[in-house]
Amino acid sequence: MLDFGGGGWFGSGMMERLLYADSENSGDQLYFSGVAVPDPFVCFEIRGRRIGILNRLEIARVRKRGGLDEVWSMEEWVKKVREAKGGKVKYPEDVLVLVAREYGISGYRVAEDFPAGVAFGLRERGMAVEVVNGLLFPERERKTDVEAKAIRAGNGAAAAGFRVVEKLLRESRIEGNRLLHNGRVLTAETVQRAIGEVCLEKGAVAMSPIVACGDQACDPHNRGSGPLRPHQLIIVDIFPRVMKTGYHGDMTRTYLKGRPSEAQKGLYETVFEAEQWALGEHRSGKSAPALYRRVVEMFEAAGYETGLDNGTPVGFIHGLGHGLGLDVHEAPRVSPAGGKLKKGQVITVEPGLYYPGLGGVRVEDVVRVGTGEPELLSRHGYRWRIR
Amino acid sequence: MLDFGGGGWFGSGMMERLLYADSENSGDQLYFSGVAVPDPFVCFEIRGRRIGILNRLEIARVRKRGGLDEVWSMEEWVKKVREAKGGKVKYPEDVLVLVAREYGISGYRVAEDFPAGVAFGLRERGMAVEVVNGLLFPERERKTDVEAKAIRAGNGAAAAGFRVVEKLLRESRIEGNRLLHNGRVLTAETVQRAIGEVCLEKGAVAMSPIVACGDQACDPHNRGSGPLRPHQLIIVDIFPRVMKTGYHGDMTRTYLKGRPSEAQKGLYETVFEAEQWALGEHRSGKSAPALYRRVVEMFEAAGYETGLDNGTPVGFIHGLGHGLGLDVHEAPRVSPAGGKLKKGQVITVEPGLYYPGLGGVRVEDVVRVGTGEPELLSRHGYRWRIR
Repeated sequence: MLDFGGGGWFGSGMMERLLYADSENSGDQLYFSGVAVPDPFVCFEIRGRRIGILNRLEIARVRKRGGLDEVWSMEEWVKKVREAKGGKVKYPEDVLVLVAREYGISGYRVAEDFPAGVAFGLRERGMAVEVVNGLLFPERERKTDVEAKAIRAGNGAAAAGFRVVEKLLRESRIEGNRLLHNGRVLTAETVQRAIGEVCLEKGAVAMSPIVACGDQACDPHNRGSGPLRPHQLIIVDIFPRVMKTGYHGDMTRTYLKGRPSEAQKGLYETVFEAEQWALGEHRSGKSAPALYRRVVEMFEAAGYETGLDNGTPVGFIHGLGHGLGLDVHEAPRVSPAGGKLKKGQVITVEPGLYYPGLGGVRVEDVVRVGTGEPELLSRHGYRWRIR
Repeated sequence: MLDFGGGGWFGSGMMERLLYADSENSGDQLYFSGVAVPDPFVCFEIRGRRIGILNRLEIARVRKRGGLDEVWSMEEWVKKVREAKGGKVKYPEDVLVLVAREYGISGYRVAEDFPAGVAFGLRERGMAVEVVNGLLFPERERKTDVEAKAIRAGNGAAAAGFRVVEKLLRESRIEGNRLLHNGRVLTAETVQRAIGEVCLEKGAVAMSPIVACGDQACDPHNRGSGPLRPHQLIIVDIFPRVMKTGYHGDMTRTYLKGRPSEAQKGLYETVFEAEQWALGEHRSGKSAPALYRRVVEMFEAAGYETGLDNGTPVGFIHGLGHGLGLDVHEAPRVSPAGGKLKKGQVITVEPGLYYPGLGGVRVEDVVRVGTGEPELLSRHGYRWRIR
């Protein structure tokens, strides 16, 4: 363990933001470093300058492609620590302690998901480590034009997915309680694969699109499986990540192949109207919980209650929307627990209603919040009945 | 903050393993819970029983599909805490403290990547939290027959990818320093997309296959981009994840379209021979660092030095292999820092040589370690010259 003579010197400087993660899975790390690195690496700020420490194999690429102000060599810093204290070096803890001493950093501020191993190791070495309450980068919520464009591209891939789904449903014919496409039973898996393929053509990965028919759709995390059924509601939720930028799209449409019942029609129209209304209401200063509650009230006024039915949640069982960007789910949440909408936030708008026996409907688009009319970042039609 | 009258009662019980992660990204969480859940949730052990706490929307699916012994309701536990202490409940910290009290748990053992926010919160509430040194689940290293089969399926998807790559290269013709396929310039991106599509057909997602030509391949994390060149070495590394099981394949082949130089032939043959030799050496009890060093020596004996060339790492610049399973990179590592190989470990064997100006070669297969001849979990030919 490092010992630089102890005491006092940590106290005089700044608390600086620190990250230790790979940038393929961590949105924060990709946001900060601007470059995809598959293994965890250290990044931090020193008085506003963004610094990363990378190993020999990564350093050239990260210097060239990344958005960091400085890229330091891991090997050189490990050597420096070894010279300063001798013995075994624990990376990154010992290096971060030495960096703090040399640059007058009093401690590090980290996100809630920062690895506990490193956080404890730093505290054991006398460093202050503070977990920030909320976001490490509140600025991530306010999307730039470049980011909005990248999200549009993600939604472009999602829309290409819907076109393929509609084509498959249109070309299928109903035989009993199954759909036949080119003589083969049309399944959720077939449709998911077709979505994946067209997203790849658009340069995006659709990790696990939802194609959920009938009661499957009443569990929002059920991806759907098996044969798709005629005359049943089919929820299709596509959230592809554009490989070049790391930004996501996220859109949902609901379909029905065959003849909808009056109950199915009522469910669809109620959700669709709520969605179209809510899209226009996403303006800066509006209360997210109020928006959410208003949608619950609209549903109740139309006769659709939300609550428990024999222990099973039914009705509007999830939030109205969430922030979208480098992560599929990021701040803010539009739910009973949210705050006020802010300019620049990119938010999904996705009301839904779910009743086992009848099925589920969800319709989802994406807006960027401004002072006036929100900017729609997703574009695809709403034809839901496929004959 | 919870106060149950303080003091002493934590001390008498067991330290139990605790996880708080989603199971789409966390291999540990998927291993423990046996079910994919996209949002973080709590799992822990109580005297060998595996328990998860899930919210209302997830609980039915996780009970039905997961591998947990018990699935508890988040809402009920939050209610219990509220009744016990009143006021605001911090989830999951307050619930984990109450669980510990009711079940005589003295503290929690967590992995290094456990979120610091929750770890600090538990310590602030008087709970012991210990970050384990190494693996939270050492048993994950020993793969069962079912797991080996799932990894084979991942490698089956990778092999399908190689067949497509070979077909594209074979069907291309050389025009100047480019390859034309059906009249269009063949690029790394085209090949990556084709790999992605065929993996999807096999039920697997190939997140970011490497198709790196010439000097691009000398940076092992460069995915490759732009036109593929004739008469240059092309490294193709495919590590698809099978969607149904979560297990990965991971294989690499190196190709050359056109006429190889003597230097390219020498490089290929040296790496290939080392790989074939090393495949047979992965037996329980063998020293991983010794295996690694032996490959370095084989390369040196053939005239291929490893080291820095003007600050750029050249030669055998990465480890010999790594564990493979629910994560692409998991324990053990076969490198200078490794230990002894153990029965049941599934390990990639992937020597490589990289020299800017000449290019790179890597060949990778996957074995399961046993007492005798290792079990090969990947199968695909090694024809590298495509005319």
